[in-house]
Amino acid sequence: MFEHGNTQQNVSRNHNGTQTSSHSTLQAETSVLAELLLNPALNAKRMNVPAGKVLYEPGAEAKSIYFIHRGQVRTYRVDENANGRLIEILGPEDWCGEAALSRHPLYGEQATAVVATVVTEVPVDRLLQVLSQQPKAAVELMKQLAGKLSASRADAAGLVFDDCHERLLKTLVRFSHSAAATPNAEGVVLRITHQQLAQAVGVARETVSLALTQLRQQNLLRTGRNQLTFNPENLRSFERQRGRSHDAVINGG
Amino acid sequence: MFEHGNTQQNVSRNHNGTQTSSHSTLQAETSVLAELLLNPALNAKRMNVPAGKVLYEPGAEAKSIYFIHRGQVRTYRVDENANGRLIEILGPEDWCGEAALSRHPLYGEQATAVVATVVTEVPVDRLLQVLSQQPKAAVELMKQLAGKLSASRADAAGLVFDDCHERLLKTLVRFSHSAAATPNAEGVVLRITHQQLAQAVGVARETVSLALTQLRQQNLLRTGRNQLTFNPENLRSFERQRGRSHDAVINGG
Repeated sequence: MFEHGNTQQNVSRNHNGTQTSSHSTLQAETSVLAELLLNPALNAKRMNVPAGKVLYEPGAEAKSIYFIHRGQVRTYRVDENANGRLIEILGPEDWCGEAALSRHPLYGEQATAVVATVVTEVPVDRLLQVLSQQPKAAVELMKQLAGKLSASRADAAGLVFDDCHERLLKTLVRFSHSAAATPNAEGVVLRITHQQLAQAVGVARETVSLALTQLRQQNLLRTGRNQLTFNPENLRSFERQRGRSHDAVINGG
Repeated sequence: MFEHGNTQQNVSRNHNGTQTSSHSTLQAETSVLAELLLNPALNAKRMNVPAGKVLYEPGAEAKSIYFIHRGQVRTYRVDENANGRLIEILGPEDWCGEAALSRHPLYGEQATAVVATVVTEVPVDRLLQVLSQQPKAAVELMKQLAGKLSASRADAAGLVFDDCHERLLKTLVRFSHSAAATPNAEGVVLRITHQQLAQAVGVARETVSLALTQLRQQNLLRTGRNQLTFNPENLRSFERQRGRSHDAVINGG
């Protein structure tokens, strides 16, 4: 996190409106980015964003990246017919607007605050200048981009190699680490609609609903109003078992 | 390029075996990475790699990235049943091994030299140390990673939103800028087999062969032994026309 959520009394506000904490318990990587956001040369703008507000549209000029302090942002890929595909569910410690770093002219994605959210908008031209003086922050952003790239390539591979059930299981496990998931006694509660899940898996809503029913019948998942309750570890081992029996069929074993 | 290919006489070899050029015509971004590779603290290893040699396997520990000076490297995503999907066609100025930067334990991809190739292998632990002193190189790698991420997300979106023909057209245009393409009077000659193209598009070889036949019948492409000749601009406008007539059908226009 860029700020320490549980210690509001230790949080000070600097003249840019960004917050920081004096806690030494902050992870090194995170404090590197928190320090970055304190640099007045960034011309960073801290903002309260209401639920439902769009941070950027696919056709908007990619000029800024957005660091999330509190709340939740979801990014979507939208095609020319306004079909959307959920790409990332982001929360505190996360950031979006990657296209701006690649000097892509347009974002190519939509980012929307799902709940009341606090972000810092950083103009990318200033950011690139400042990063030349703060190499540790540049290295940290580079590592996080490489992580996003690995996730994206795994996602694309899944679309080619995996069937819908495998992709659904992997997507549920991935989102169980996201800002949309809250731990509970059974594992996690994931706040997502069938439609949004279908957009992430890349299939029709009806297909996802059917697959979720099958998981429910196997006691691997409970469904509720706009939420799913499951144990990610159980889904992971179920997916591995499925993979093995699938291989056995293919190999005649 | 990390070296200026046409001016061998001006190329000097430093004690690490990396080459550099004194030409001021080198692009700024490229010289930043060329300068990086000269740093002895990197412990970089320049190597001649014969055609067909694998640089890394998906299951190998991701410890190094590879900068390409000459030749061609292709990266593949391989699933548990050894089905491969072509991800990138890389040449001079390019690099691979992105997983190492994300501190992913394994590469998750295969990289293979397609022709006799010259690369510099850079251990990532040393690289991250050196980048903390060479922020411009860190920023440049960050930008290139952001570009790779945009390409990967566009690719995944294509797998969900586009039909096979659209994906084939986009893939041909993308590869027309790659190391596998050589400019000629008609546009480019792309050296690729139907099987490799199918792996990139994410469909069966038969599907790609059929689609190529249709493009040939429309005089948009010529096929030869392991190569395709076409004008990328013509394919791009054909794809746009196709998209428009497709939208018109959907919207009843």
